[in-house]
Amino acid sequence: MQLNCSEPMIHVSRGPLTESVHRGFIAVTDTEGNVLYQLGDPDYITFARSAAKLLQALPVIESGAVDRYGLNEREISLLSASHSGEAEHVDTVHSILRKIGAAEDELQCGPHFPLNRDAASLIRERGGKPGRVHNNCSGKHSGMLAWSHHLGEATEHYMSPDHPVQQAMLGAVADMAGLAPSGVVLGTDGCGVPVFGMPLRRLAQAYARLGRPDGLPDERAAACRRVTAAVARHPFYLAGTDRFDTRLIEVSQGRILGKFGAEGVFALSVPDRGWGLALKVEDGAERALYPAVLEAVSQLGLLTASELAQLAAFRRPELRNWAGTQVGYITPAFRLEPRG
Amino acid sequence: MQLNCSEPMIHVSRGPLTESVHRGFIAVTDTEGNVLYQLGDPDYITFARSAAKLLQALPVIESGAVDRYGLNEREISLLSASHSGEAEHVDTVHSILRKIGAAEDELQCGPHFPLNRDAASLIRERGGKPGRVHNNCSGKHSGMLAWSHHLGEATEHYMSPDHPVQQAMLGAVADMAGLAPSGVVLGTDGCGVPVFGMPLRRLAQAYARLGRPDGLPDERAAACRRVTAAVARHPFYLAGTDRFDTRLIEVSQGRILGKFGAEGVFALSVPDRGWGLALKVEDGAERALYPAVLEAVSQLGLLTASELAQLAAFRRPELRNWAGTQVGYITPAFRLEPRG
Repeated sequence: MQLNCSEPMIHVSRGPLTESVHRGFIAVTDTEGNVLYQLGDPDYITFARSAAKLLQALPVIESGAVDRYGLNEREISLLSASHSGEAEHVDTVHSILRKIGAAEDELQCGPHFPLNRDAASLIRERGGKPGRVHNNCSGKHSGMLAWSHHLGEATEHYMSPDHPVQQAMLGAVADMAGLAPSGVVLGTDGCGVPVFGMPLRRLAQAYARLGRPDGLPDERAAACRRVTAAVARHPFYLAGTDRFDTRLIEVSQGRILGKFGAEGVFALSVPDRGWGLALKVEDGAERALYPAVLEAVSQLGLLTASELAQLAAFRRPELRNWAGTQVGYITPAFRLEPRG
Repeated sequence: MQLNCSEPMIHVSRGPLTESVHRGFIAVTDTEGNVLYQLGDPDYITFARSAAKLLQALPVIESGAVDRYGLNEREISLLSASHSGEAEHVDTVHSILRKIGAAEDELQCGPHFPLNRDAASLIRERGGKPGRVHNNCSGKHSGMLAWSHHLGEATEHYMSPDHPVQQAMLGAVADMAGLAPSGVVLGTDGCGVPVFGMPLRRLAQAYARLGRPDGLPDERAAACRRVTAAVARHPFYLAGTDRFDTRLIEVSQGRILGKFGAEGVFALSVPDRGWGLALKVEDGAERALYPAVLEAVSQLGLLTASELAQLAAFRRPELRNWAGTQVGYITPAFRLEPRG
């Protein structure tokens, strides 16, 4: 058990009553890991889940695999994706696999229908089944295969925590977060590979450094710049149509680079300020996540009013009943506290 | 804002870490509303949502509509249902509508695909669309139509809080809960009709009295006995195949009569003891609901070990990844406190 009391973050209202409450934690830090703003305990430990993917792309670039196989910026963005399984995403996964000379069945992420509803319907209408390429993590897995092919490592057990590619990713994630690899808690993701548990403050620090890698070793700094440039220029490949991550980067024109993780996690980088932010909805609810991220971003003054307006549907979603009538709202209910 | 600190109720683990925490509130009372056991604040106010449906069936019986139209016990059970839209449920809704002389389009609940996956697939495979009868609340709405037809009230606006049937239901719910109608907070349900907000302790009291109506006026006591008998004998009509509410009543052989409500609510009656229990998952997550109810029921000694074993899949569900490997658990993490 961690802290016994956590802070309210989001209210779900119905008529005159707050029907449900989502609590959570936020840490905003600089590149040194100093906490600038917080909600609740900034040292709350949780899994970064897919919010670690931008960090996991670093060793793929640093290994030389990206250059050797000539991966383009769309493909680099997709290495960090929780993509929607739209045609462009699937084509790009196939392109990566072709370039590295890997067969589709080398991917070991379990198949699931595309997150994008239209893409899923298309498969269903044709009586088809989703493949491993449709798994939202197939870009990350392609990166793991690229790393392994390039360095001559067998890929049969590439998902095992002992495999060199997982060790390389753990090393990079830990290093960016200012932790020893042994200080990172390991679990297993929905896609089968290790996930990385750490204090939120450390995840925020990793994102601060990702966006402003000035003090890092040259090779690492260059890799950070390639990842952030790819994601900023091709946010569609990080998520997909109408997805929050994509829209946040598009609307902010790359001033904010953010990534969703399952179970209510979000991490974002603000390169101009050298800040990172990490957020966890305590109960894991995705419905609370985007309103909370936008509220935090708004309180920090990171988006203009007109930019926030473009993201309004994510910020205060309406609850509607089966007949389509509005019956309630999902509303932010917290104030970030400055620290220091 | 209510209490600023709530109690952990359910842990969602992944590997060595508690990844997400669901907090919540439980009140166990006798028929007088005395709190016997609690988790957190027993006066926490929330909407009963569909957990009020057994109470809402009372005025339908008391009006004389059930006798006049000759509704059988399956149909009475369905009046209180959040049913799965299986063939038997839909047929029974049609049967009620036929008996009362109502057309299907008098139902004003919005259509949605059946909660039962097979029933939903069947409609999709035939290229069909779900109707209002498939709405999980169509039994309750049929009861509202039965009441209105019997008493000669127009049904055009039967969902309005001002309509006599809604006033009758508010009156019955408030009375069972030991509240004045003005003490009940009103909101709008997913199906369009009013929902009833009250302290958990009051919802528990209403369920205690429902199961042991000895001190109530004769007509009300008789209606309580007809509702509980119908639900105990025909729990399938309260929910459906593999649904928790149905299985809890089946496995306990009617010693526990429980009803789910949206946004993480559950209410149950233990007639033998004259107890009621009301539970709210603070964040509304259904995944936390059944493990929490079963843990409470287990701590109260209301089910035998062999009965609990039959419900094990609801009590500590496994989390699996897309490849089917177990990666975590949903586990109860609370202790009910005796009071008094």
